[in-house]
Amino acid sequence: MSNAINRQFKLAARPAGAVKATDWNRTEEAVRAPAEGEVQIQNLYLSLDPAMRGWMNESKASYIPPVGINEVMRAIAVGKVTASNNPKFAVGDHVTGLLGVQDFAYSSGQGLTKIDPKLAPLPLYLGTLGMPGLTAYFGLLEVGQPKAGDTVVVSGAAGAVGSVVGQIAKIKGARVVGIAGGADKCRYLVEELGFDAAIDYKTENVAEALKTHCPDGVNVYFDNVGGDILDAVLTRLARGARIVICGAISQYNNTTPVKGPANYLSLLVQRATMTGIVVSDYYDRAAEAAMVMAGWIQSGKLKTREDIVDGLDNFPKAFDMLFTGANNGKLVLKVA
Amino acid sequence: MSNAINRQFKLAARPAGAVKATDWNRTEEAVRAPAEGEVQIQNLYLSLDPAMRGWMNESKASYIPPVGINEVMRAIAVGKVTASNNPKFAVGDHVTGLLGVQDFAYSSGQGLTKIDPKLAPLPLYLGTLGMPGLTAYFGLLEVGQPKAGDTVVVSGAAGAVGSVVGQIAKIKGARVVGIAGGADKCRYLVEELGFDAAIDYKTENVAEALKTHCPDGVNVYFDNVGGDILDAVLTRLARGARIVICGAISQYNNTTPVKGPANYLSLLVQRATMTGIVVSDYYDRAAEAAMVMAGWIQSGKLKTREDIVDGLDNFPKAFDMLFTGANNGKLVLKVA
Repeated sequence: MSNAINRQFKLAARPAGAVKATDWNRTEEAVRAPAEGEVQIQNLYLSLDPAMRGWMNESKASYIPPVGINEVMRAIAVGKVTASNNPKFAVGDHVTGLLGVQDFAYSSGQGLTKIDPKLAPLPLYLGTLGMPGLTAYFGLLEVGQPKAGDTVVVSGAAGAVGSVVGQIAKIKGARVVGIAGGADKCRYLVEELGFDAAIDYKTENVAEALKTHCPDGVNVYFDNVGGDILDAVLTRLARGARIVICGAISQYNNTTPVKGPANYLSLLVQRATMTGIVVSDYYDRAAEAAMVMAGWIQSGKLKTREDIVDGLDNFPKAFDMLFTGANNGKLVLKVA
Repeated sequence: MSNAINRQFKLAARPAGAVKATDWNRTEEAVRAPAEGEVQIQNLYLSLDPAMRGWMNESKASYIPPVGINEVMRAIAVGKVTASNNPKFAVGDHVTGLLGVQDFAYSSGQGLTKIDPKLAPLPLYLGTLGMPGLTAYFGLLEVGQPKAGDTVVVSGAAGAVGSVVGQIAKIKGARVVGIAGGADKCRYLVEELGFDAAIDYKTENVAEALKTHCPDGVNVYFDNVGGDILDAVLTRLARGARIVICGAISQYNNTTPVKGPANYLSLLVQRATMTGIVVSDYYDRAAEAAMVMAGWIQSGKLKTREDIVDGLDNFPKAFDMLFTGANNGKLVLKVA
């Protein structure tokens, strides 16, 4: 490693609206030996997640501090230990954690979790067996609480979180309607993942389509997008509906204020609930959930799809795909 | 009763925005004998409630059908049975129910509840021991679930619902901050009802005042008003906060779309919940709640205030007071 170079993407400026190339600063530094107690990790795959856009904003009211200007951009990754001064980690161990958009990361070991590359392909630890999968699992089951026969609607349904939400809802005996952008994604939801119906928000009137596909109303809505789609679903709630607020990707690049849900008084009319979820609250139960989902994957009940972009230098371009909806499945950047 | 006249206020037109005098049609008809199985009731006091504004709109998505054009305006009242062809009710019985804005009502007995005028003054059955009090009781305790030491914020705090919410929260050991319009109401909340603080939304910056009075954030917010005040409270939620959506009086006279809560993503950041309540879901437990609250009233822990306007013909003027905030306490119209 003595002559190796560590490429890093740092946050150069806080973006206003969509992220521009100039908001990133690509730098290089020499790879150094780990300090006392440290682990040196070579990143193999980086996870690209919508939440990263929120980490770039100077906001006091978030669940995690923002990334500082000139700091390496925060990202979850899987990597391999290449040097260790920490007795808990040995060279060759595979690990996952917040390792950042770079070739090599250094860690005290805190927040670093060992993973087994024989149990599942590495990118899966960034998707269904990682943060997005755990978000889907706990958000749906703990907050949404679907019952057999319920109608469950999920937006961003072809994404890393939404596709798992819909499939778990099917496993639990619910009728599942996915909202996604484009005919290909909608076909994938119904034909590959077994959703009961899919709504293409790019070509269909979502409120009208919900009337057709949810004749008895919506019992659980798992919201990844906010905006007009959230408002449309609010008009179709069943009595006692549960809305899980997981994200609002339609609003993340706003330069105007967030669009609040104008139809929120449906919560009153339908005695419904809208609840936010942050996955880190459930990390103490992550192993349990990953085991259950690994079982579903092995038995073919839970399908996964990764969209893997090659090369760290493609990070800015790949990141943009999240917001144009260009990715098909969990978006992962292959680093090494 | 043979020569008595029944004055009635009927809905003449669906109002756009604030209700105008021409939206009402005052008519008179002769008082008739009750039909087979019917009870004839002379209304003594009418309840004026913000919810009545919603009943005037042609809306499919409500918890109760709208009042029809040329129908007597729906209202809760207390009255006295003046003639009966129903064995369950005798002349002289005092009753409460949806008796309408008129001197005399006829009922099959369904939805009619006998009340005891010796236990409490009659207007109290329209306020703290009636629909507003039950709304406060079940909305706060079942949905808001305040714990001792929690900070509870309530808007419309000097109103029929809000004043009871705040006092019950105090009884349960919470710190209570009320939001109301005007120095007199704010003084009343703190000096008479024992609230810990009051915010005058007409002269104060609500978000700033919440910072001062809720240094550890808001654990429970009971919302009667919606709009900018809901948005301000959303910025001050504590982790795991519960928002009870009871009403949105700031939006009821809108001619533009309802203003959705732009800061709703605080629900995500704070893992908070926003839940609607409709009091009729709890009517099977009304007697239990009324008994508990009657005990608090007798022991001086729960204070009530009624603002009684005299005369059925003052109905349109009195109704407007709800929306200008001119009333002090539960607004009641004395009919006879």
